[in-house]
Amino acid sequence: MMKNINISKELKVVEKYIKKDLNKEKTISGLYKYIFRSSGKKMRARLSLISSSVRNHKDRFKLASIIELLHTATLVHDDVVDNSSVRRGVKSVHNVWTNSHGVLIGDYIYSKAFILMVEIGKKNILNELANATNDISQGELIQLDAIKNVKISINKLKKISYYKTGRLFEASARTGAMLTSTNKNYIDNISECAKNLGILFQIRDDLLDYSYDLKIGKPSYQDLREGKVTYPFFYAYKNADAQDKKKLIKLLGNKNLNQSKAKTLIENLNGIKKTEQLAKKYHAKTIDCANKINNLSVRKEMIELANMSLERDK
Amino acid sequence: MMKNINISKELKVVEKYIKKDLNKEKTISGLYKYIFRSSGKKMRARLSLISSSVRNHKDRFKLASIIELLHTATLVHDDVVDNSSVRRGVKSVHNVWTNSHGVLIGDYIYSKAFILMVEIGKKNILNELANATNDISQGELIQLDAIKNVKISINKLKKISYYKTGRLFEASARTGAMLTSTNKNYIDNISECAKNLGILFQIRDDLLDYSYDLKIGKPSYQDLREGKVTYPFFYAYKNADAQDKKKLIKLLGNKNLNQSKAKTLIENLNGIKKTEQLAKKYHAKTIDCANKINNLSVRKEMIELANMSLERDK
Repeated sequence: MMKNINISKELKVVEKYIKKDLNKEKTISGLYKYIFRSSGKKMRARLSLISSSVRNHKDRFKLASIIELLHTATLVHDDVVDNSSVRRGVKSVHNVWTNSHGVLIGDYIYSKAFILMVEIGKKNILNELANATNDISQGELIQLDAIKNVKISINKLKKISYYKTGRLFEASARTGAMLTSTNKNYIDNISECAKNLGILFQIRDDLLDYSYDLKIGKPSYQDLREGKVTYPFFYAYKNADAQDKKKLIKLLGNKNLNQSKAKTLIENLNGIKKTEQLAKKYHAKTIDCANKINNLSVRKEMIELANMSLERDK
Repeated sequence: MMKNINISKELKVVEKYIKKDLNKEKTISGLYKYIFRSSGKKMRARLSLISSSVRNHKDRFKLASIIELLHTATLVHDDVVDNSSVRRGVKSVHNVWTNSHGVLIGDYIYSKAFILMVEIGKKNILNELANATNDISQGELIQLDAIKNVKISINKLKKISYYKTGRLFEASARTGAMLTSTNKNYIDNISECAKNLGILFQIRDDLLDYSYDLKIGKPSYQDLREGKVTYPFFYAYKNADAQDKKKLIKLLGNKNLNQSKAKTLIENLNGIKKTEQLAKKYHAKTIDCANKINNLSVRKEMIELANMSLERDK
């Protein structure tokens, strides 16, 4: 076990690692620097560093950087998909350059991550990350089916939360553990814990979109305006009578929706409360799994992340 | 050496391989089947099969399928980037579904290719393909700089042709050879040969866009209309006086250009002739490298592809 692990300090090393060896083409390095200008929470790199903290290994920072690159590539492509104008508080790539730049620099970052993975050269890590990347794209594709689809099932919504977010949380923890441990119990427990944490994180994200909090750097009700059915809408719709169902349908995909009417309607139909209950359920699951982790310091870090994620307001 | 290799027959096996194990989500399998409905020339899978034909290996078809998946992923993303309406004679993905579907199914296909690569489990192959994928995205990004840029250099245009097209041709041959041979000369010769073939292929592609031939399934002068400076325009511009330069600039990015005026101008300024000379130069380079390949049957196949590529009219 490594002593005195300082994750915040280690994340700075990851940030530096990502920014070294810039491409010689100005267009590419310009885009790349712009994308990594704003730092974000780095939840996934954090998970990677926590799970690999059980012993020293020369590739710990490289692996955490790979995870962050993969995540960032998905964000850049998401922004093109969602046509988002802002990411991490700054204008998104396709808003400063073009959609084409967003697609291509996303591909560039993905493949850079794969090059680094091959350098680490562990087949189990490569396998987990290639599969996670594939699952993320599946999650995003399934989510496109959720647009203006009020008949979506709770299981499909859960699959979306898992594939879109839980899957990379899981892979971050699993590959970090694989790098430094051969203890199957440890690898499985921290992976399961991170998976539930990721789903919790996504549920909170869905909730934040229904809040008036502007700290998140994107306008509230963005999902609703885009016609995306997420948990708060799902539960409200489930509780609604015929008349309220009609009102809800009118909100979905409505770019000029009345915020206070939307708030009242969805709150009265228990959309927020039920989603908060779901978040608490995944928080409890995360804590349960965390408690199975033998390593005290890792367990503590995971519990802290679970509590932070339940309460986060940005 | 394998006897009686029949590439056309082997390509059918690759087609089948790509279409097996479809995703259980209907949206995903629907998109996937649509994309692989039309078959294309499969130049890169062909190169993979030729270069790996020096001995039997259980993963020959898998590797050729990976190459075809990687290539198809780039095409799907290219269509989003170029906003193309047609691909291989059928409507492109983002034209039937949306841009978002194009971005995400491209990511899905890329990562599926990486999953299969990891299954083969050869580090040198993984490294070559991860790097080639990265280089392709670089080529495409650099090409965005070539839009409406009449000051682009011939070296930059050559880099684009290599990264965009030559690079995957090279990687297809190199990884095929790596799978079945340890002879460094063989691996290097066929890679260099395939690289030049790919550049030749791209030059012919640029030329075809300036031809009236409609067999290619896309409208002529598409590059010119999109404002892309390719070889024919480059050479014409280089030969032009101030007045003709102005006329050329007016054509660039002009969606409603006068086809017969464009044809006359660019032909008179030797844009076509000079590009044809460049194609012949890369044909000669390809033949030179092919002649260094000791394996007679492989050499013959490569020479045939070179001749086909020089003369292709679709």
